Amino acid sequence: MALTVYLSGEIHTDWRNEISKGAQENDLDIVFTSPVTDHAASDAAGDMLGAETDPFWRDHKSSKVNAIRTKTLIQNADLVVIRFGDKYKQWNAAFDAGYCAALSIPYVTLHAEDIVHPLKEVDAMALAWARTTDQVVEILKYVERP
Amino acid sequence: MALTVYLSGEIHTDWRNEISKGAQENDLDIVFTSPVTDHAASDAAGDMLGAETDPFWRDHKSSKVNAIRTKTLIQNADLVVIRFGDKYKQWNAAFDAGYCAALSIPYVTLHAEDIVHPLKEVDAMALAWARTTDQVVEILKYVERP
Amino acid sequence: MALTVYLSGEIHTDWRNEISKGAQENDLDIVFTSPVTDHAASDAAGDMLGAETDPFWRDHKSSKVNAIRTKTLIQNADLVVIRFGDKYKQWNAAFDAGYCAALSIPYVTLHAEDIVHPLKEVDAMALAWARTTDQVVEILKYVERP
Amino acid sequence: MALTVYLSGEIHTDWRNEISKGAQENDLDIVFTSPVTDHAASDAAGDMLGAETDPFWRDHKSSKVNAIRTKTLIQNADLVVIRFGDKYKQWNAAFDAGYCAALSIPYVTLHAEDIVHPLKEVDAMALAWARTTDQVVEILKYVERP
Amino acid sequence: MALTVYLSGEIHTDWRNEISKGAQENDLDIVFTSPVTDHAASDAAGDMLGAETDPFWRDHKSSKVNAIRTKTLIQNADLVVIRFGDKYKQWNAAFDAGYCAALSIPYVTLHAEDIVHPLKEVDAMALAWARTTDQVVEILKYVERP
Amino acid sequence: MALTVYLSGEIHTDWRNEISKGAQENDLDIVFTSPVTDHAASDAAGDMLGAETDPFWRDHKSSKVNAIRTKTLIQNADLVVIRFGDKYKQWNAAFDAGYCAALSIPYVTLHAEDIVHPLKEVDAMALAWARTTDQVVEILKYVERP
Amino acid sequence: MALTVYLSGEIHTDWRNEISKGAQENDLDIVFTSPVTDHAASDAAGDMLGAETDPFWRDHKSSKVNAIRTKTLIQNADLVVIRFGDKYKQWNAAFDAGYCAALSIPYVTLHAEDIVHPLKEVDAMALAWARTTDQVVEILKYVERP
Amino acid sequence: MALTVYLSGEIHTDWRNEISKGAQENDLDIVFTSPVTDHAASDAAGDMLGAETDPFWRDHKSSKVNAIRTKTLIQNADLVVIRFGDKYKQWNAAFDAGYCAALSIPYVTLHAEDIVHPLKEVDAMALAWARTTDQVVEILKYVERP
Repeated sequence: MALTVYLSGEIHTDWRNEISKGAQENDLDIVFTSPVTDHAASDAAGDMLGAETDPFWRDHKSSKVNAIRTKTLIQNADLVVIRFGDKYKQWNAAFDAGYCAALSIPYVTLHAEDIVHPLKEVDAMALAWARTTDQVVEILKYVERP
Repeated sequence: MALTVYLSGEIHTDWRNEISKGAQENDLDIVFTSPVTDHAASDAAGDMLGAETDPFWRDHKSSKVNAIRTKTLIQNADLVVIRFGDKYKQWNAAFDAGYCAALSIPYVTLHAEDIVHPLKEVDAMALAWARTTDQVVEILKYVERP
Repeated sequence: MALTVYLSGEIHTDWRNEISKGAQENDLDIVFTSPVTDHAASDAAGDMLGAETDPFWRDHKSSKVNAIRTKTLIQNADLVVIRFGDKYKQWNAAFDAGYCAALSIPYVTLHAEDIVHPLKEVDAMALAWARTTDQVVEILKYVERP
Repeated sequence: MALTVYLSGEIHTDWRNEISKGAQENDLDIVFTSPVTDHAASDAAGDMLGAETDPFWRDHKSSKVNAIRTKTLIQNADLVVIRFGDKYKQWNAAFDAGYCAALSIPYVTLHAEDIVHPLKEVDAMALAWARTTDQVVEILKYVERP
Repeated sequence: MALTVYLSGEIHTDWRNEISKGAQENDLDIVFTSPVTDHAASDAAGDMLGAETDPFWRDHKSSKVNAIRTKTLIQNADLVVIRFGDKYKQWNAAFDAGYCAALSIPYVTLHAEDIVHPLKEVDAMALAWARTTDQVVEILKYVERP
Repeated sequence: MALTVYLSGEIHTDWRNEISKGAQENDLDIVFTSPVTDHAASDAAGDMLGAETDPFWRDHKSSKVNAIRTKTLIQNADLVVIRFGDKYKQWNAAFDAGYCAALSIPYVTLHAEDIVHPLKEVDAMALAWARTTDQVVEILKYVERP
Repeated sequence: MALTVYLSGEIHTDWRNEISKGAQENDLDIVFTSPVTDHAASDAAGDMLGAETDPFWRDHKSSKVNAIRTKTLIQNADLVVIRFGDKYKQWNAAFDAGYCAALSIPYVTLHAEDIVHPLKEVDAMALAWARTTDQVVEILKYVERP
Repeated sequence: MALTVYLSGEIHTDWRNEISKGAQENDLDIVFTSPVTDHAASDAAGDMLGAETDPFWRDHKSSKVNAIRTKTLIQNADLVVIRFGDKYKQWNAAFDAGYCAALSIPYVTLHAEDIVHPLKEVDAMALAWARTTDQVVEILKYVERP
């Protein structure tokens, strides 16, 4: 069973790498996709289209250039893993969760126990909540059973 | 032009009331809907179905009972106003934005300037960003022009 | 908040009546709909179109005539309550649940604790599991809060 | 004509194997997919995410982990064969039928004659009812004619 | 249960009238809609937009003006009754059936027994086949049971 | 047959008024909707949200505020009439046509003969091309025949 | 540009072969699909599931087994060519046209001039009307231009 | 990340070639598609189906034959680039933009600064506005980052 798994959310820890390494070690037939995870590059994604003086419009342009990539990848994914870390607002991750929920694209969340309460609406529509990347790999192994 | 407007997000300030009062003062033909905004009641929405020892499952049940209301109201709305305040994680508000974006339900955001950057993906798909409830009322007045 | 609630499943106990009575006592603005609940009439729904010698085709015709009613009512419902009793196979109730799940129509289940395990896939996609009709009424009261 | 056929339902007899063997013997260009058919593994699918004391929640977690696999496979199938045996409640099979019906995914049922009546709603929306795995293979051969 | 029923097909016999009279006599809460049933007017529906020398384009324009009405009415119908008579090609009736089938709009057919074979694909996706207008009224009475 | 008709396009001539007057004179049961047709107000629709120095962003904000109104009205319309005049680029009118075509919302065009060639893709998906507002009224009269 | 083209309709003349030969001679990158075109086999498609005494049900079963193939192929097609000959009722061909129209699957018709009038609704939603198989090949050549 | 990018709009300058050359020079994994860009051939696309005396119908037939190609390519595209030049009405380009917007197919526009105002509705729903083909290539490079 070939799967495409989109890895959404936090871009400051090594979680994407841990999951894809775990999948590789288990010979899982999975293609992982993700947003551009270089923070500076992502914030500057729209700069090629001309400089902006107002930070709102700089953000606006960059978000939309990023959306060219992320909307396509999410819609092509069989499963989305959404990671919430302990820094930043991470509203984009929750946005992706709502997007998936509306389109019936299966997603699982990956986050620590201390943010269970504020994530309750996000978790309620998820097909699983994992605390560790190992658990995500276990899910993928299960889904990929022959 | 009769409109149904769903007011999503923050439940700790008076913003919903300000908008509906503004609409009333301008004789706008708008029905406002919202989630249950009593925080304690919302957290306890699933308690009627039996107590839970694990807080994750209590949250889970309550979120889903709330979703019976919110999913229906969002899908019936012509416009969703999504408010981000200065407290709490508010991932549910971002989740609603993603949900609207995926279903092409128009939404506008309402938030202060200092959170423009973390909300860039949410704002990128919004049809407007308002800083004040007065601005939201102005939008509604414009949309309702004869 | 006006709601249309479709009551699917078991037709041999008084549960539909209990729920609508409970809603009435609480002045809830709800229209309840349901399949034809007269068992004999339901089995004979296609007989008007000519007799069949093969029971498979008699069932086939009756099921489809019933579907004219049930498909329309389910698709027009804001919420579906699906009741599993302790008799019969009740595959039609599980079928309705799958139908709702696929179309993102919110549903809640109503059943006793002893059939939790065989209903796990059905409950997994439900927004709530109620054990009693009183609990369903409580859910409706909550959803209808002003 | 390359086909993907999902085999849903009963996991206690050899019917999946009989069908895929029949397809192979006839050189049909078909990929068969299925849920995890190891009963114990399927019931334990969510255990990797932490133990649960309440059996409802254990079932809940496992069902959702299974849904990651089954929803994707059903939505990617050109045809779903749904098997009802003579044991267990098998509400998940009827759930899958309703899911397919709602999304216009073609399905055929496979079951003995003695359960025709309780399956009438499920059969009414099926494109065929087969009594034996041989008949299913015959259908596949016909569909695959050059 | 308020229903909207679109009456498609043959325009040369009194069948529409018979059904709506039958519904009225039984106090059914049904709104009947239909295409323009004046044959000459229907063929000339596009003439107001300028004369055509090529009969193909005259037909083309008229069909599209008629489609403004029929597409809207079919999509708003809860049920479509499609009548095949014994004259003319009636491809438009079969076209409406395919249109309904694709959009999961329930339809029933109304035709004599001698055209069962050529209508087999159309009947296969119908929820009922009626031979007489009385049978259609019976179906409607059943669907409308309180 | 109650119809909602959205009048899209040119805002510098009296065509909307001519059509609605014609409908009124013929007692047609039609609600007409339209974008804000006050050119200056429309260009300034986003100014309430703060001034912009870059004209691109001023336009951007205004277009989106207008879209709150127009997207909702187009999606609620049974028919869209799209008018192309002899001034300006009118890309928004062609945009509305593409939008309707994609969503299978019926539309008719209203324009002079000299722009038939550049409008060929727009006209190809329209259900009618009218040269005069009288012809549009004739279409509406036909569609509304009892 | 790789295309999948489904050839629907008449099964008594050599038109399918003419088109695929024409495509081959022009080195077009096209996969052609079709229903089972062996008339007797098609009528008997459901016989493997048990004999029927009532011809209606025999037709019913066969039509549905055929639908397993045809629904899938039509939904996977980039273009459908629908042929109307001079014999039989051919309601299945018109049904396929309506099916395509509803799902926005492009189709072209292939028929002689003398049946233009009864096919006007079918042709109105087609993207082309061809009189000869050569014309269909010309269309395919055009669509496949580099 | 393999992408399919449809290049819509202006057919009189070399912009398509510039973009695909830029993509090639950067080793991007992109398939570019486009309408038939030979103006005379495109206008004559329907001539193979018989001559027309009325230029409206010649245009009509050609537009629809072109639509066989363009509708399929747009719906299969991950991204659409829509070019507006300084000649002609280019309503077809704006039509494509509306089509993409309605189906949530991401698109970017490519045009000079002097037509920002008349394109405001088209740009409002775009994910980016580029002034030069180099900027489009930059966007594609960004989207394709590993």
